[in-house]
Parts: sequence; structure tokens; C-alpha cells
Amino acid sequence: MAQEEKIYTACMVVIGEEILSGRTRDANLAWIAVQLNEIGVRLREARVIPDVEEAIIRTVNEVRGGFDYIFTSGGIGPTHDDITADAIAKAFGVPLNVQPEAVARIKARYGLGEMTTARLRMARVPEGATLIDNPISQAPGFRIGNVFVMAGIPVIMQAMFSGFRDQLVGGRPLRSRTIGAFITEGLIATPLGQLQETYPDVTIGSYPFQRDGRYGTSIVFRGPDVARLGAAAEDYIRLAREFGAEIIEDISN
Amino acid sequence: MAQEEKIYTACMVVIGEEILSGRTRDANLAWIAVQLNEIGVRLREARVIPDVEEAIIRTVNEVRGGFDYIFTSGGIGPTHDDITADAIAKAFGVPLNVQPEAVARIKARYGLGEMTTARLRMARVPEGATLIDNPISQAPGFRIGNVFVMAGIPVIMQAMFSGFRDQLVGGRPLRSRTIGAFITEGLIATPLGQLQETYPDVTIGSYPFQRDGRYGTSIVFRGPDVARLGAAAEDYIRLAREFGAEIIEDISN
Repeated sequence: MAQEEKIYTACMVVIGEEILSGRTRDANLAWIAVQLNEIGVRLREARVIPDVEEAIIRTVNEVRGGFDYIFTSGGIGPTHDDITADAIAKAFGVPLNVQPEAVARIKARYGLGEMTTARLRMARVPEGATLIDNPISQAPGFRIGNVFVMAGIPVIMQAMFSGFRDQLVGGRPLRSRTIGAFITEGLIATPLGQLQETYPDVTIGSYPFQRDGRYGTSIVFRGPDVARLGAAAEDYIRLAREFGAEIIEDISN
Repeated sequence: MAQEEKIYTACMVVIGEEILSGRTRDANLAWIAVQLNEIGVRLREARVIPDVEEAIIRTVNEVRGGFDYIFTSGGIGPTHDDITADAIAKAFGVPLNVQPEAVARIKARYGLGEMTTARLRMARVPEGATLIDNPISQAPGFRIGNVFVMAGIPVIMQAMFSGFRDQLVGGRPLRSRTIGAFITEGLIATPLGQLQETYPDVTIGSYPFQRDGRYGTSIVFRGPDVARLGAAAEDYIRLAREFGAEIIEDISN
């Protein structure tokens, strides 16, 4: 390439006591990771923090300068432990206002009679933020600066993300090719390290597995250039065969 | 209580490109969270970072002063992308040495003939660290200061943690009680917030669910004092019944 390619980066902030207590296993990180690969944004970090105002403020302010996009999930419901909007407003040093358009959307769902004070909480948005559509249960998320604030419930988070995904600017999609073989990491580690040096533009990861009582290794080649992934993968396949290993897995994503 | 109770805290650092790329869903966080509850240590944060030296050094140095325990998983195998030991040594500003006891353990597994240079990598430990036993595949983890460095493969990580778990100092175990009912969050949010104010020593979390096409909410009461959890839960059960809701779930952990 003639000019330096910009790498777009993201950090995911999962806000949820229920993840840290082990009650719930987070499902949003893996889903967003795959989405970001497709639009050429690299998920470079994720943090899981409790529903504690000071923790949310500190975390958001630590990460928002270091990545192109920050995605948060969790803590935007009507109950006392839903404090994400309050904390984000404080992190940005702006007031949290009841937003008429957000009120209208929530009213459209619940009707006037069931528009409780608690539900009105969900219409509070930091000043300067724009709403993120929630086609499932109407109560919107919001975007302020490079921070996208979404619900924690996976089906709602996914609907929210899908609604603004096409507006995100990314680079070339991140592709991968995975080659699995019954060969142990320790045997191929040295030539594999040399292969990594030969292909500095391809990220080569090694993941051991056990299947049918035998040890094997999946080697994952990641990068935007499918031809380069292919070249590195073919070199590796030759290498594995030199060690007498049979290729049992060859997956392109 | 006559004197202030010390709260023991932990942060988990998951080191793994495969989690951030969406290839693998982390299983270690939820497992460790449950273990820590039992020994009275609160998991207050988790971070997922890539196998990048600068990211590991920065993260470990950011978190190790803020929590009683840091647990890392991933990146201690024999391949070029396993750089956790190197990075931890740099984070602590100490040399990384081949440790004779670690060499002996790895040799015992592979035998002299298969003791490759790559496998010897797994015997490198930061100066001043103590080994963490690996009963599954022998290559040890290590502890330096308050940082416990473990493998990423769940079965090995769990075996390592189980080996030193009884040496960790914690407070009273963290217990929980969960009450589920077909009642929507928006209806009970205000009285639930008042309940939280009445029980500042109990963390009350609200988690909506959908089951059989109906909306419901699980309310989770967390804290070390089972009697206090019980009192808060019974107050909530009365409250839910006032709203005409039937209790469909009552779980103590």
C-alpha cells in the first residue's frame, strides 16, 4: 500500500454486577467482536465493571481517549441499580436531561397510564447525546462522543448495535483462516515463531486442543489481506506435514 | 459489628486475542467469580486484553495496586504468542529466569528427548516468583506479589486455582438469594429503590427476563449476612405479592 492504513479500534465496557458475581455469563463481547471484524474495527480491550458510579466514570474516562469506539452494555433500565446514564453524564461533565423524544418512545410502548416515574428514568440522556433506537422495548440507548451506550440484554443490545452498525467507519474487514492438526504446540513452536517473523502483517495465534484423547493445535491466521493469510497458512500446512501431521481442520472466516 | 470489616477484592485479567476476536468465549471469569464468592473475595473488575506485551505490562501495573488479588489467564504456553511471563517480569521490573524446578517439572512430562527449546520457554519465571502447580500438563504458573499467573485453558486454569485457593485470605463468603416473579421492572422499580435504601449492606440487583412469552424480573440480594439477605428478600416477596405477582423462583446460594 502506498499510504499507511489506519487501524480502527474499539473497547467494550460490560457494566454488570451479575457478570462479576458469576450469575450470568456475558454473551455480548463475543457477538460484538464478530460484528466489528466484519466492519474492519479491531476490538482491542474489554472491561467488566460493577454497577458502581465511580467505577463507570473512571473506566469510561480511562478508555474513551484510547480507542476510536467505546461500546457499553448494561445498566440503562428503570431500577435503582441502573446508573449508567447518570455515570456517563458525569464522565462527560454534562447534565442529564429528560429527553422529549425518548419520553415519547417509552410512552408509545407503555401508554400514559403505565408511564411510571421509574420508566421516565429511562428517558434521561446526557446533554449532547443522540438516541440509539431500541426496536425491541423502545427505551433508547444513546451515543455521546465516541461512546455508544446500550442495554445489557443480548437481544436488545444486538438490535441496537445492528441499527447503527452501518454508520461506523472501519477499515478493511478482519479475516481469519484456521488450520487444525494433531500436532502439539511444543513441537512446532520454534518454526511457527519463524513463520510469524516472515509474515509480520498476519497475526498468528496458536490454540491447543484435546480431541478423541489426542492433543492437537489450531493455528489461526488473522489479518485484512486474504492472500497473505492464505500464503502464511499454506506455509504452515507444509510445515505441519513435514512433522507428519494430518490437517483435520481448514476454516476461512 | 464492632469493627470495620475488611472487604477483599480481586481483578481478573484475561489475556487472549482469541477472546477479543470472538473466536472463543471466555469461560474462566464466571468460574473464578463463583470460587471467589465462596472464599469471601469480591471480583470487582475483569479485563480482556490481547497478547501484546505493552498491553499486558500497562494493564497489570494499572490494576495490581488497586485490588488485593490479580488473577491472569492465558499466554503461558510454548509458542511465540505466549508472552505473558515476559510481560509480567517487565511489569515488575525483574529479570525472567529459567527456573530449575520448573524445568524439572516440564522434563518429567516430556522426557529429555522431547524437551524442545520452545518447551523450555515455559520454565522461565520472573525473579522472586513462586511456582503454581499444574497437575494437568506440568508446565507451572507462577505468583509474583499479588499477581497469580495461570494458563488460559479452563481445565488447567481451574486445577491451578484449586491448588492455591485455600491459601487466599478472604472475608465472609458472599451469599445470594434470588427471587423471581412475573412482574415488570418498571412497576416495582420505585419501591425496590426504597428497599435498597433500607438495606444498604445488601446489594440488590434487578434482572428482567422473558419466559413463556411473559415478562418477569429476578431480584438478586447479595451480601455476606444470610439473615439480612433473608429479611430483605422477605420484604420484597411481600411487595411483589402486593402487586399481585406470584413468586416463581426462590434460590439461595
